[in-house]
Amino acid sequence: MALDYDALNENVKKCQYAVRGELYLRASELQKEGKKIIFTNVGNPHALGQKPLTFPRQVVALCQAPFLLDDPNVGMLFPADAIARAKHYLSLTSGGLGAYSDSRGLPGVRKEVAEFIERRDGYPSDPELIFLTDGASKGVMQILNCVIRGERDGILVPVPQYPLYSATISLLGGSLVPYYLDESENWGLDVNNLRQSVAQARSQGISVRAMVIINPGNPTGQCLSEANLREILRFCYNEKLVLLGDEVYQQNIYQDERPFISAKKVLMDMGSPFSKEVQLVSFHTVSKGYWGECGQRGGYFEMTNIPPRVVEEIYKVASIALSPNVSAQIFMGLMVSPPKPGDISYDQFARESKGILESLRRRAKIMTDGFNSCKNVVCNFTEGAMYSFPQIRLPPGALQAAKQAGKVPDVFYCLKLLEATGISTVPGSGFGQKEGVFHLRTTILPAEEEMPEIMDSFKKFNDEFMTQYENNFGYSRM
Amino acid sequence: MALDYDALNENVKKCQYAVRGELYLRASELQKEGKKIIFTNVGNPHALGQKPLTFPRQVVALCQAPFLLDDPNVGMLFPADAIARAKHYLSLTSGGLGAYSDSRGLPGVRKEVAEFIERRDGYPSDPELIFLTDGASKGVMQILNCVIRGERDGILVPVPQYPLYSATISLLGGSLVPYYLDESENWGLDVNNLRQSVAQARSQGISVRAMVIINPGNPTGQCLSEANLREILRFCYNEKLVLLGDEVYQQNIYQDERPFISAKKVLMDMGSPFSKEVQLVSFHTVSKGYWGECGQRGGYFEMTNIPPRVVEEIYKVASIALSPNVSAQIFMGLMVSPPKPGDISYDQFARESKGILESLRRRAKIMTDGFNSCKNVVCNFTEGAMYSFPQIRLPPGALQAAKQAGKVPDVFYCLKLLEATGISTVPGSGFGQKEGVFHLRTTILPAEEEMPEIMDSFKKFNDEFMTQYENNFGYSRM
Repeated sequence: MALDYDALNENVKKCQYAVRGELYLRASELQKEGKKIIFTNVGNPHALGQKPLTFPRQVVALCQAPFLLDDPNVGMLFPADAIARAKHYLSLTSGGLGAYSDSRGLPGVRKEVAEFIERRDGYPSDPELIFLTDGASKGVMQILNCVIRGERDGILVPVPQYPLYSATISLLGGSLVPYYLDESENWGLDVNNLRQSVAQARSQGISVRAMVIINPGNPTGQCLSEANLREILRFCYNEKLVLLGDEVYQQNIYQDERPFISAKKVLMDMGSPFSKEVQLVSFHTVSKGYWGECGQRGGYFEMTNIPPRVVEEIYKVASIALSPNVSAQIFMGLMVSPPKPGDISYDQFARESKGILESLRRRAKIMTDGFNSCKNVVCNFTEGAMYSFPQIRLPPGALQAAKQAGKVPDVFYCLKLLEATGISTVPGSGFGQKEGVFHLRTTILPAEEEMPEIMDSFKKFNDEFMTQYENNFGYSRM
Repeated sequence: MALDYDALNENVKKCQYAVRGELYLRASELQKEGKKIIFTNVGNPHALGQKPLTFPRQVVALCQAPFLLDDPNVGMLFPADAIARAKHYLSLTSGGLGAYSDSRGLPGVRKEVAEFIERRDGYPSDPELIFLTDGASKGVMQILNCVIRGERDGILVPVPQYPLYSATISLLGGSLVPYYLDESENWGLDVNNLRQSVAQARSQGISVRAMVIINPGNPTGQCLSEANLREILRFCYNEKLVLLGDEVYQQNIYQDERPFISAKKVLMDMGSPFSKEVQLVSFHTVSKGYWGECGQRGGYFEMTNIPPRVVEEIYKVASIALSPNVSAQIFMGLMVSPPKPGDISYDQFARESKGILESLRRRAKIMTDGFNSCKNVVCNFTEGAMYSFPQIRLPPGALQAAKQAGKVPDVFYCLKLLEATGISTVPGSGFGQKEGVFHLRTTILPAEEEMPEIMDSFKKFNDEFMTQYENNFGYSRM
């Protein structure tokens, strides 16, 4: 029958999603058995104790319970600016949070997003070219669905990459064309590598149609420089590639000398013909930044140089699932227009946001330093995003033991780490790896006060593991 | 470039979604121009003034603002049972509404859904076989994605059907195999028709793999009888078809003599070999019923006789988009375990629910009677769901005028209706039609007190339209 394993759509079977793969499943089992698990496999800040920002939660709670707005006691629990904002957002809906919105999202929120982009980049943004989505992932899937027609359509994806891309490309039956980020250059992007990747794909009959950048990088944490973005956009122009800019970590920046610069801004700065021709889709979310509202599932994408007829097609496909959830649309509105100085809630909002961001900055450093103190582990500093991606140089004895256990070496290492310490990571092979090179990804999200203990526990496991498997045959190559 | 119209994935271009098609777009334009529009194109109760149920909104508001639970004044705005429930649901999350849940949904809510199904059907239900989704549509798309491998894979879909099915099948590149519901038998399903449809599809090289039933029917409003369900399940058993049971309107029942019976219950009643072999996936939602929480995007599906390995594959694909939104998961929990007699909020909850349901029942009757009083309009009674689907017998003059305007006849009629009255409907052709037969779909959701005026306005338009175009050449055939 159609839902027997042998009869399933092969593309479904082919796709892999390591962030919730073997390691996650084993960690869930161990948790059920009573073991304390530190879930650093996915960027899920609230699950690791990060408190939600108060003001947006007040506003959305009031939108969920609009009858409170008429209650004379409402002021005892909610500040006046939250009440005013809730009324504002309810006025943008056509029936509150329980009514479907337009399939592109509420027009009023899309206008607020456009204003945010204009302030950020200094260039106009059109609300009609902004679609709200149930998280950024859903937006990426919608756009790739338009681009991919079959197995000969290729998408350039960084390696290491976030497996949303590899999984979605498999599911849609396209071809992933890898380009390698350079670990020795702090995970920088070399346009020569891109050219080689495209040439090689073409020699295999693949028509390369789009390129993905993740900036700041996931899992690699680097911020692309303006010069680098310029090269990428010029490359897309020359090769007629759609650029998908995954910019969901744009608020997660930990080095003042490496700010986030949007692909849209660089493209507009470049002027004609680039600014009028390069097709760009940029993605953002309420799940990351200092918001971390993952469970709300809110995101948007902005389209640049996409013809109106195609925008209509994307609208049509979005409409099949009716509308993104409305409460997350309001979170998006709040994220792009947070309290301003002088507002009642401003001080608290600023204090909470700053507290989270500064702690993330400190945690990025504790984690990088911790990894670099371990035997056979080297780790670039996390400039942005919320991950650390140390390289684990596995001794031949470990490779052999992994082979005997029937595991990929980094999976073998991460499983041992999980069993010994409860730390649930993602093996680097889940993100793509150069042959013979091994990494793992952890988030930098565990609570700051627990971080030293976690890193001690990691170091103890790692150094014992290395000693156990070390012998005279050298290491896996850098 | 890949996002030029000519270069798009053809399946994207092919798919049609009439519920938000030409009529909806024109209605939105007219609304912008200041015209009062009555949006009956989509089952969106809150957009037409239905008030949300108070208790679930209180609970979810508290979950959004968990800091209120520690506020000594919380009892001034929220009843004690809402507070207790909010604590209960927060305890089922791993970090509140801002944390991703398991990709299948919160285990604790899936358990509550299983208990609901057990109470409803009298048979065990396994939470591990229940997945929560961002609305039922997303669940349907996930399952069809597993079933459809290419254009030779066929899915049996009722005609008239809800265009989610036709659009998704197009998008996934499969083949829709229509079976016709019988208007003269109150939209009943004749298994002989099914056999003919399957035989015809097979003669064209289509491998029929699954069958969709919508019960209660959308747009047709009928409830399938137990005997009919039994025949369908036997047919699926014999033909080795997966049955997709779209049961999202199971709470919307307007005739006591035609209750809703789930496909799962009938299958279990049938016993071995059927109950052990027929693959069934049943869908439900928080968007319909007397809840109407469309904008929250909450749904579930339950799998019966799906092998564990396939359940894992479906889990893997669900995990690519991380998790359904968590607040709608809590709405689902509340829907399947509403306040009980004796609870503080029970009386209010029961009064509100009953009020909505009884009003829908009255509105179904006002609308059917209204349509049947119009010239050249005949309409079956709405037994369930939230739609009315009158047949419009268009005179030849109207067919000719439509042709001249370059419109499908029912689109022509519905556009004229919209311009004249502001009533935004969906032409029957969007749901599939027998050749030469025309309908329109409206929801029964406009406010009860406005209903007589709306029906008067409809009748006035229709009767003038018919008089204008009527001549001696007869009507479109019944």
